Amino acid sequence: MNIILLEAVECQEDPVVLIGRRAEHIVKILKCEKGDWIRAGIINGRMGMAEIIDVRRKYPFQVVVNTHFDTSPPAKNPIDFVLALPRPIMLRRILSQAASLGVGTLHIVNANRVEKSFWESSIIEEGLFREHLLQGLEQAQDTVVPEIVLHRRFKVFIEDFLPCIISRYRYRLFAHPRSSRGLGTFFTAAEGGRVLAAVGPEGGWVDYEIQKFEEHGLHGFSLGPRIMKVDTAVINIHGRLMAEVERLHENL
Amino acid sequence: MNIILLEAVECQEDPVVLIGRRAEHIVKILKCEKGDWIRAGIINGRMGMAEIIDVRRKYPFQVVVNTHFDTSPPAKNPIDFVLALPRPIMLRRILSQAASLGVGTLHIVNANRVEKSFWESSIIEEGLFREHLLQGLEQAQDTVVPEIVLHRRFKVFIEDFLPCIISRYRYRLFAHPRSSRGLGTFFTAAEGGRVLAAVGPEGGWVDYEIQKFEEHGLHGFSLGPRIMKVDTAVINIHGRLMAEVERLHENL
Repeated sequence: MNIILLEAVECQEDPVVLIGRRAEHIVKILKCEKGDWIRAGIINGRMGMAEIIDVRRKYPFQVVVNTHFDTSPPAKNPIDFVLALPRPIMLRRILSQAASLGVGTLHIVNANRVEKSFWESSIIEEGLFREHLLQGLEQAQDTVVPEIVLHRRFKVFIEDFLPCIISRYRYRLFAHPRSSRGLGTFFTAAEGGRVLAAVGPEGGWVDYEIQKFEEHGLHGFSLGPRIMKVDTAVINIHGRLMAEVERLHENL
Repeated sequence: MNIILLEAVECQEDPVVLIGRRAEHIVKILKCEKGDWIRAGIINGRMGMAEIIDVRRKYPFQVVVNTHFDTSPPAKNPIDFVLALPRPIMLRRILSQAASLGVGTLHIVNANRVEKSFWESSIIEEGLFREHLLQGLEQAQDTVVPEIVLHRRFKVFIEDFLPCIISRYRYRLFAHPRSSRGLGTFFTAAEGGRVLAAVGPEGGWVDYEIQKFEEHGLHGFSLGPRIMKVDTAVINIHGRLMAEVERLHENL
């Protein structure tokens, strides 16, 4: 935890009493005492510092703070992902990593090669995204929770939903190992703008899905001959896109 | 496993009998039968296909194959890393991910903020790198094991070892959150060449280490305000570097 995140409802007035995981972290890992200052912020709100005014060490720990939130969180990157639903352990990791990287929105879609049972996992059924997203924000020192949108039917996503949002994106791409184009070849126009990048399931998109992406104006790109795990691919693609986006931004 | 890897000593003549993890994978996950063909290769050697000529299902499984290795493995990327030794669970993940991405060499170094106990972990003491590297190669369909070099003393690494290899690198960089330069600013000369990128421990490099890097011709770069886990940082930096390297390559 590089920042302690508070719910807006918790910090309507000072002092704020922290309990549970956050209090334990402050006492046991950060080893803070009364008078110390720690980085903190309001979920989806401003961030800054909190002054510890009391540490109650009788279990369960309580840490009492006064908050000083005077800074905006870092900007999100202009990159959103479409992600074929991966297996739950992979999804948890991606949620946390995407939040830490500053991804804007993650559209989680069905695809032909997504195992049906993944949609019945507790993380999906109960929408348990938030704790993993918050872990990523705590790592990155950010407060703004990325948006997660579930699309249980690929056809509905691509035909009905995607056309409503596609105009937000200057760059519309999907990962496709058989494509002959590298990612960099799409960023030659020196034009800034948001990027939408779609990453398939293990085994890739099937021909029908590729055809639908192309019909709706997305372009396939390849990362070369290596097959990556989905989480590695997402971070790798995000890194490549950031290099392109920052270069365009400098040229503008 | 997207490729079955064989030791050179195993496949001096056909047929080859596979046992253990690989045989189980072929029988249980790939559900192969006699007559099927699977992707396979020799560790640090050529790759291609193997024809299954017998499957012995009595436990422990045995799979008998004839090999046809006629392809070179994919080229490694022109990117090597210096990595402050992370905690063992993180190191295992990075080894596998670095191998899957096609990193050339990983120099694992000590640093002020590396916990001493990490050097006493079994993965370091017993040099148990290979199984994690092979997992990455099996994922990526590669056969060539990245080189791992341990440097237990930072001073010896930077003063004695680094000067011997530094001339191999056109781009010499270290991650440093307080740097004012983004990664892309170093790749404006349209000159190709190998990249060496150093990634610090949790909490970053200390001033002495930064000074030593600078004395030896490395330049600090920042990835922005977000603090990443080391594994996320390595993949992210690798992605950004690949974008730069591929763009330079196209311009050459």
